[in-house]
Amino acid sequence: MAHTVKQIAAALGAEAFGAVDLLIEGAAEPAMAGPTQIALAMDPKYGEGLAKGHARAAILWAGADWQELGLDAAIFVPRPRYAMSGLTTLLDAGPDIATGIHPSAIIDPSAHIGANAAIGPLVVIGRDVTIGDNARIAAHTVISEATVIGDDAMILQGVKIGARVQIGDRFIAQPGAVIGSDGFSFVTPEKSGVENVRETLGDQKDAKAQSWTRIHSLGTVEIANDVEIGANTAIDRGTIRATKIGRGTKLDNLVHIGHNIQIGEDCLICGQVGMAGSSTIGNRVVMAGQCGVNDNIFVGDDVIAGGATKIFTNAPAGRVLLGYPAMKMETHVEAYKGLRRLSRLFRDVADLKKAVSKPEQND
Amino acid sequence: MAHTVKQIAAALGAEAFGAVDLLIEGAAEPAMAGPTQIALAMDPKYGEGLAKGHARAAILWAGADWQELGLDAAIFVPRPRYAMSGLTTLLDAGPDIATGIHPSAIIDPSAHIGANAAIGPLVVIGRDVTIGDNARIAAHTVISEATVIGDDAMILQGVKIGARVQIGDRFIAQPGAVIGSDGFSFVTPEKSGVENVRETLGDQKDAKAQSWTRIHSLGTVEIANDVEIGANTAIDRGTIRATKIGRGTKLDNLVHIGHNIQIGEDCLICGQVGMAGSSTIGNRVVMAGQCGVNDNIFVGDDVIAGGATKIFTNAPAGRVLLGYPAMKMETHVEAYKGLRRLSRLFRDVADLKKAVSKPEQND
Amino acid sequence: MAHTVKQIAAALGAEAFGAVDLLIEGAAEPAMAGPTQIALAMDPKYGEGLAKGHARAAILWAGADWQELGLDAAIFVPRPRYAMSGLTTLLDAGPDIATGIHPSAIIDPSAHIGANAAIGPLVVIGRDVTIGDNARIAAHTVISEATVIGDDAMILQGVKIGARVQIGDRFIAQPGAVIGSDGFSFVTPEKSGVENVRETLGDQKDAKAQSWTRIHSLGTVEIANDVEIGANTAIDRGTIRATKIGRGTKLDNLVHIGHNIQIGEDCLICGQVGMAGSSTIGNRVVMAGQCGVNDNIFVGDDVIAGGATKIFTNAPAGRVLLGYPAMKMETHVEAYKGLRRLSRLFRDVADLKKAVSKPEQND
Repeated sequence: MAHTVKQIAAALGAEAFGAVDLLIEGAAEPAMAGPTQIALAMDPKYGEGLAKGHARAAILWAGADWQELGLDAAIFVPRPRYAMSGLTTLLDAGPDIATGIHPSAIIDPSAHIGANAAIGPLVVIGRDVTIGDNARIAAHTVISEATVIGDDAMILQGVKIGARVQIGDRFIAQPGAVIGSDGFSFVTPEKSGVENVRETLGDQKDAKAQSWTRIHSLGTVEIANDVEIGANTAIDRGTIRATKIGRGTKLDNLVHIGHNIQIGEDCLICGQVGMAGSSTIGNRVVMAGQCGVNDNIFVGDDVIAGGATKIFTNAPAGRVLLGYPAMKMETHVEAYKGLRRLSRLFRDVADLKKAVSKPEQND
Repeated sequence: MAHTVKQIAAALGAEAFGAVDLLIEGAAEPAMAGPTQIALAMDPKYGEGLAKGHARAAILWAGADWQELGLDAAIFVPRPRYAMSGLTTLLDAGPDIATGIHPSAIIDPSAHIGANAAIGPLVVIGRDVTIGDNARIAAHTVISEATVIGDDAMILQGVKIGARVQIGDRFIAQPGAVIGSDGFSFVTPEKSGVENVRETLGDQKDAKAQSWTRIHSLGTVEIANDVEIGANTAIDRGTIRATKIGRGTKLDNLVHIGHNIQIGEDCLICGQVGMAGSSTIGNRVVMAGQCGVNDNIFVGDDVIAGGATKIFTNAPAGRVLLGYPAMKMETHVEAYKGLRRLSRLFRDVADLKKAVSKPEQND
Repeated sequence: MAHTVKQIAAALGAEAFGAVDLLIEGAAEPAMAGPTQIALAMDPKYGEGLAKGHARAAILWAGADWQELGLDAAIFVPRPRYAMSGLTTLLDAGPDIATGIHPSAIIDPSAHIGANAAIGPLVVIGRDVTIGDNARIAAHTVISEATVIGDDAMILQGVKIGARVQIGDRFIAQPGAVIGSDGFSFVTPEKSGVENVRETLGDQKDAKAQSWTRIHSLGTVEIANDVEIGANTAIDRGTIRATKIGRGTKLDNLVHIGHNIQIGEDCLICGQVGMAGSSTIGNRVVMAGQCGVNDNIFVGDDVIAGGATKIFTNAPAGRVLLGYPAMKMETHVEAYKGLRRLSRLFRDVADLKKAVSKPEQND
């Protein structure tokens, strides 16, 4: 579906110049752009690319001379990355799911599905499920008994949602995500080596050999409005209470959320982050890829953790973390600078020991 | 399904007091409990919650005065966490899969399925598969040719089990788990840079540019009794022999088990742990989330590894490990205490060098 | 399907001795081999196993006396691991998918599927999809609209391929792999704490509380010839341009490839590796399990990274890396040797400080 340059600018809350009625069918990097694509050149480094490509219109960096650049039309935006949000929302056609319910979908007669649904082939929807209006549910998704999902959901291929899960509006789930798997919770009849190690920080004591007994997960998962879950991510249900994901929080691919985890609002949890059971994460927390969160700890509001940070203990609000184990980012940078020069330090100390001991030998 | 307080106590091997015929329909945290739920208050810190909630019965900490707490009935247990196992087993209704075989399931006529099966919609079962009695197999599961599964299996949505896999009794697989994917095994016609690096610990030498050729996985996967596999976990088949998971071992979500791995009995392998090919893990090994195991190594019985421990070399039985690379937990705690103070040490040594060199200049 | 010893040797480009017309039905480890299996004994350490097993033929280490070992036939290979490739290719029967299209598959009439296809139960193929000749597509796979796949594809159970993806010849995808999920790309209306931390390496400044807005992924995924993708791995589509995987590159299980990533040719990316968005990986790069790659960096040709290496900054071609953060492997080995002895160094420095200050006190 095509949009005029003027419509695009309006959607971005930006100003358009030149041939603002030009029809645009898509977006492209400057050097790759065809004549019906708008070139994304929000930085002067893309100027050269514009010359190579065939765009007639572009979104440009502040101060660019669009006529000099050979363009027929231009849009200027104050915050380029934010403009990408508006632009891509406008141009995204979304997944191809026909309106209505595909005849191969298996939907329990007790399920309630709102208006204007598009439900793909081989979807399975269980007993007493409720789904709001405008749902788009792609092929091979399973939604289990008594689960409730709000309006405007987009659930992609092969998502598996367990029983009694509560999900808000505008939910997005990428392919293969699992919501409501059982928690990983096992116990031995008598005290285990692990329990002893936790108490002693290193000593198993004489725990005897035992097998693990399962603690079943009776709790569920509660997901607030405006949450997105990545591909093949898994979210376990709670043991008694619910595992919770707060409003506006986004989870990337292959994330592991253990049982009873409580995540606040507006968090970004990147690829392959893992959280052990029963920890609490504040609002606006950002965890880069492969971070780990210990069980039963607290991560405060506005914590930012760099790539692969392993958080073993409570993190106060606003802390910026990095490393294994997590340190303040500036401490980490300093410590690892030292670590790289450590062999030199050992040599220096050896020299010092010689220098200091020599005079005594000379006595 | 409701149980009396007396029945619950009996299931836990515990004593019940007061109105032991009270009917209980579920469990809840004390502050959230309704009148037909049993409150879980095994620690004095939950006393306050009991006053806020509406439970008439509770499982209490030793020494609690249940009448003083306003309860009509109480159960006392010696090991609260272990009691959780009995209680949740009793109260878990399990997944909603109708008894019998759903008409949309595609089951090869040569497959043998035991008595009392519940097989959900769109399940695919291949040629010569054998499944024991009481199987519960949820929607969208695939079980491939010549695989054998024991009695009492619970296989959740979208699990994919490959060909010729052998699985014991009481098997549980969470949604999206993959069992029997091909091993990641490739070789170059001539010696590769990786082979040289392994020999020299750092030098690629002059290995030439080559493409990778696939080693196919002819082996299978053997899983003993009482094993549980987490959501979206992947277990590769062996190259020639089988990848093996021992009796009573539990794997959490998003775990990666490479080809030829041999895991012993009663292990706990937590979320996102990864094991490269051909390593051997002993019995009762516990690995916290995000641990990694190198290929072709040996991890002894009763090893416990803390979060994100990366095990590069053989680990003796009973060792408690932490860190990247893995160290004894106490060594790790000590080493990282030092790492954080490293910049101070550099300053001290610089001062010492000045102090030691000064007298000589004064000579 | 059986092969003679002579046929196997020919497939390996190797020499056969003895009863070369012996029929072989499979391969086994020496101690487990039956009389119709060829024993794999390419190292003298397997000599003993041969005596325990019942193999009549073996692939042997150079210089072995096959008659002395009691064998009827033997094959000698110059590079045993490479021979495994030829042997396992010969003996792998492949997945059991009947030729033709299973009646339960749902294939859009506009899709074009090449000659000699084997398409399993409940496969869903969307509008305008093109698939080459000899495709083997297992149960529950979804291939979305306008995607193009080359010849000789083997796509296993439950793979989900998104819209408009381009894939070359001889593509292999293990169960549960997701190709073409949306990128994880979000932006705040005003500058966020994360943006400030990136600039200052640790300081959030006074970024205000904001919610995240989605940048949609308009780009796609391009996968060249001879690529293999592991079980439950997820590859995100690009934002504007395509995420790309080069010819001959192999990805293991549970790998996360972010949006816009460009991976070169002949790379090996092992289990649970994660790559944040927009980074570029050269040719013949090898990353061991659980490595991480920061966003917007460059990893040069022939880089080899050991297990769980976290690459935060550009890595020059040919570099051998290890550690968190990544160091040259030899620097890492040296640094961590020091780290383990750090508490001793602290004691030495404390002693030195005493020794150096004492004389002054004595003055």
